[in-house]
Amino acid sequence: MRTSRFPLSTLKEVPADAEIVSHQLMLRAGMIRKLAAGVYNWLPLGLRVLRKAEGVVREEMDRAGALELLMPAVQPAELWQESGRWDQYGPELLRLHDRHQREFCFGPTHEEVITDIARRELRSYKQLPVNFYQIQTKFRDEIRPRFGVMRAREFLMKDAYSFHLDAASLAETYQVMFETYSRIFQRLGLDFRPVQADTGSIGGAVSHEFHVLAESGEDAIAFSDTSDYAANVELAEALPPAGGRPAPTQAMQTVDTPGQHTIEDVSRFLGVEPARTVKTLLVQGEADEVIALVLRGDHELNTIKAEKLPGIAAPLTFASDEAIRAATGAGAGSIGPVGLTIRTLVDHAAAQLADFVCGANADDQHLTGVNWGRDLPEPETADLRNVVAGDPSPDGKGTLAIVRGIEVGHIFQLGTKYSQALNATVLDEAGKETVMLMGCYGIGVSRVVAAAIEQNHDEAGILWPEPIAPFRVALCPMNMKKSEAVREAAEKLYLDMCNAGIDVLFDDRDIRAGVMFADMELIGIPHRIIVGDRNLENGMVEYKAGRSRDAELIPVDEVVERFA
Amino acid sequence: MRTSRFPLSTLKEVPADAEIVSHQLMLRAGMIRKLAAGVYNWLPLGLRVLRKAEGVVREEMDRAGALELLMPAVQPAELWQESGRWDQYGPELLRLHDRHQREFCFGPTHEEVITDIARRELRSYKQLPVNFYQIQTKFRDEIRPRFGVMRAREFLMKDAYSFHLDAASLAETYQVMFETYSRIFQRLGLDFRPVQADTGSIGGAVSHEFHVLAESGEDAIAFSDTSDYAANVELAEALPPAGGRPAPTQAMQTVDTPGQHTIEDVSRFLGVEPARTVKTLLVQGEADEVIALVLRGDHELNTIKAEKLPGIAAPLTFASDEAIRAATGAGAGSIGPVGLTIRTLVDHAAAQLADFVCGANADDQHLTGVNWGRDLPEPETADLRNVVAGDPSPDGKGTLAIVRGIEVGHIFQLGTKYSQALNATVLDEAGKETVMLMGCYGIGVSRVVAAAIEQNHDEAGILWPEPIAPFRVALCPMNMKKSEAVREAAEKLYLDMCNAGIDVLFDDRDIRAGVMFADMELIGIPHRIIVGDRNLENGMVEYKAGRSRDAELIPVDEVVERFA
Repeated sequence: MRTSRFPLSTLKEVPADAEIVSHQLMLRAGMIRKLAAGVYNWLPLGLRVLRKAEGVVREEMDRAGALELLMPAVQPAELWQESGRWDQYGPELLRLHDRHQREFCFGPTHEEVITDIARRELRSYKQLPVNFYQIQTKFRDEIRPRFGVMRAREFLMKDAYSFHLDAASLAETYQVMFETYSRIFQRLGLDFRPVQADTGSIGGAVSHEFHVLAESGEDAIAFSDTSDYAANVELAEALPPAGGRPAPTQAMQTVDTPGQHTIEDVSRFLGVEPARTVKTLLVQGEADEVIALVLRGDHELNTIKAEKLPGIAAPLTFASDEAIRAATGAGAGSIGPVGLTIRTLVDHAAAQLADFVCGANADDQHLTGVNWGRDLPEPETADLRNVVAGDPSPDGKGTLAIVRGIEVGHIFQLGTKYSQALNATVLDEAGKETVMLMGCYGIGVSRVVAAAIEQNHDEAGILWPEPIAPFRVALCPMNMKKSEAVREAAEKLYLDMCNAGIDVLFDDRDIRAGVMFADMELIGIPHRIIVGDRNLENGMVEYKAGRSRDAELIPVDEVVERFA
Repeated sequence: MRTSRFPLSTLKEVPADAEIVSHQLMLRAGMIRKLAAGVYNWLPLGLRVLRKAEGVVREEMDRAGALELLMPAVQPAELWQESGRWDQYGPELLRLHDRHQREFCFGPTHEEVITDIARRELRSYKQLPVNFYQIQTKFRDEIRPRFGVMRAREFLMKDAYSFHLDAASLAETYQVMFETYSRIFQRLGLDFRPVQADTGSIGGAVSHEFHVLAESGEDAIAFSDTSDYAANVELAEALPPAGGRPAPTQAMQTVDTPGQHTIEDVSRFLGVEPARTVKTLLVQGEADEVIALVLRGDHELNTIKAEKLPGIAAPLTFASDEAIRAATGAGAGSIGPVGLTIRTLVDHAAAQLADFVCGANADDQHLTGVNWGRDLPEPETADLRNVVAGDPSPDGKGTLAIVRGIEVGHIFQLGTKYSQALNATVLDEAGKETVMLMGCYGIGVSRVVAAAIEQNHDEAGILWPEPIAPFRVALCPMNMKKSEAVREAAEKLYLDMCNAGIDVLFDDRDIRAGVMFADMELIGIPHRIIVGDRNLENGMVEYKAGRSRDAELIPVDEVVERFA
């Protein structure tokens, strides 16, 4: 391709409303343009990258024996009513009605439609297992779309759905998909990690997310420095500290802490490490009960773990100021577990403290030298907190480190959640109607593109992994307008490379070398061939790989060979 | 691919609600399934065909230098308000609003969005001409979606839009697209014809449709038996008959025609050919005027031609019964041009009649032996009728024949209709802001699939043109379960064919030969290899091309070579 036929729309300025680097670079490189909030045009340069990512996904899904089909964007409300999600799904579901006032939605996902297909087309266990997939445009009406295509409303997704007679078959296909996803992200040249994940609203029992590691990632991932263990921090189990609780050495005392309401305040005021304090959070239990959750001062509540505890209402809701005062006699900044009469759950780590500090359940007062089993009853313990770096790995091997990741894939063992609701059955070997088991497997194809940039960029621009670079080689002639020799050599080289099937961008614009190189670095072409008069005299051109400072001279007639 | 891994969903029965053969066969072959009215799932078999058609379209658009991009399905109302189409477009435009109550539509076409991109990205005449295209899902909320994917609401379209500094450049790209479309439909193996067309509501001056010829087509196409002339009957000019008007031979007489109100009635009653009668139609003119249109009794009014005549209101509206009686003194079945005081336009053919029959403007009376210039004034003539087979070709070469066609492509020279409304300008060579000219070029990719079937089928099923067949070769083993020799030979042949890159469907189901052949004929695989014990003994397999009755024996080890 020639830049004279393939106009680059690069921008020098960083667009003001782009917060993260992938969004900035996709705009600057001329890959995307915003049409409306969370709705983007993919310009030719961006679409080349998207299509390459899509191509790798398709090849690997085909190799895994999945069958591609295509379901519509517009889905009838009836199916969503049948699964119950028409009412459960919030305003993220873009609802619409046609000219006859029939209700539809713009599909954010396709569990209902594929289950409807399966119940019509699949009759016998002999047709199982089967795994259908599509690469298709979806819409989720995010309340605050942001970060460009990273969290867009309209996006391109690969979604797959498998159907099974039994759990063993589901587990087998799930494993195939796990390996397929690993291969896909490997082939895309991304540094990624599969992690155990919460199944959330999609439902089901077993689930893994695939994260591209990047500092800007919205998710925190805990992984063992020794074993294969990796999990979303949402899910990673925090083990009780080893060694048990020390014996008390202090007497309990009430101290005045005027105006000191946060852990930070109190720690500084009393000269005590936050890890020697506890914080007490009151949350809504079932049937109007208020429940206290107690954590070490330096730990964070994990709401997903808390929601799963018996007696606690989901989604997790914190008690109001009035409810706090009614239950404890104090404001939120001065409460603690001593003397509380409501049900109290204590995180394992907080339960192992001795001589700790907590609120006194009296405004502007705290207690010091508090000890479980002496100043208050032995605690009812639970895993309430997010793991932190240095925690022991839940599999008993090594300690945990925390990295940030961008979720680009998610696989689920759904079980019968949708097949039951839609009565999707087959006849088993005994001729008995059996509800099929399902798995589902998603990849955010457009998000993969943004995630690849978050992981691979520098100040000059994007550093594409070669498999998804918009072009593989940039052919940069110097001063082609003035030098007939350069023009001839570059045109011939371009023709030869095209004929050899090399994915090359020939920058035939009449612009300064600096501008040309800046563009090629911004759009992130992995290889660069520079054709200039001086080297041509010796039959050579300059070659640079990636952002390497070092140029290599290679003979003109070896260029094709090098990339073929 | 193996049928054990690629389940066929063929049906024996013709689905009751499928009216046309392509719809019936797409359902029976398991290519598509209805999700809602005019909204279809593409099952794996159907999607293979759709993707092959899409691939040919993409290759040829790329070859023509067009640049692929991808615009969203969801489009903001503001752009459509800017072009004026938010109000002009009827209920076919699927309007919706997001959670913030902002108005959008599900794009039925993308003129507004591409013009918005062009006005932002294109600044200089140096960037022109440029031709952008996408292959993307669209939605038109048809009042009566029918015929499967032939007239669906959600459909896959290739739409391209070119931008130009001047009319010469537009004409040049238009010609390139004309040739590209011809190549696309040739490569798809379709019998098609490009025809001059009306530009309709899209606007612009020059336009061609590409029709796949098929008896079930909704459009009538007139073409010359001698020259290249071809046009939609909507547009084809009807020349005045050669030879001039004969001299009168009869006196005008009033005859009673009780209860005879149609041309058929009157012709039979009076024993006169319909071609010797005229019919008079009263239509709405501008400013409440009523205008009479007079045609030969055997000719049909062409409403599109009539709408374009000065003084006639568009869309064409017929006068009410009251208005007819007020203007003529008679009911619709007894009116005629003699003595009429309203403006009267006479079709060229009717104006050449002598001694003709018409209504007398008195109920249940007609006139015979009527002659222009004697019994009523010389007529004001116009081209008002549809051409019919046998008419002279408008280009003066040969006579016209009429065939039926399915519109699968449409190209337009739009001019400045959208670029003017959205103020899409570039700087010309003199540095002056200039509104760009536009062309637009569409192919209904999903409709192409249905049209291909309408043109290529027999009682047994689909007869795919090879470039879009879901598989190229069917490998049919006979009695594989019982014969180890057949199994071994078939499995080896399958492996060898796959390794040679041959697109083969291996029917490894344990079913009777008749059922297997019926399925392969229904889904329309062009080539068939039959592996059976008897021939294997001689190292041979049977080969059948298409629906040929004649089988050819070929050596097993020459099969790969034959298809590679």
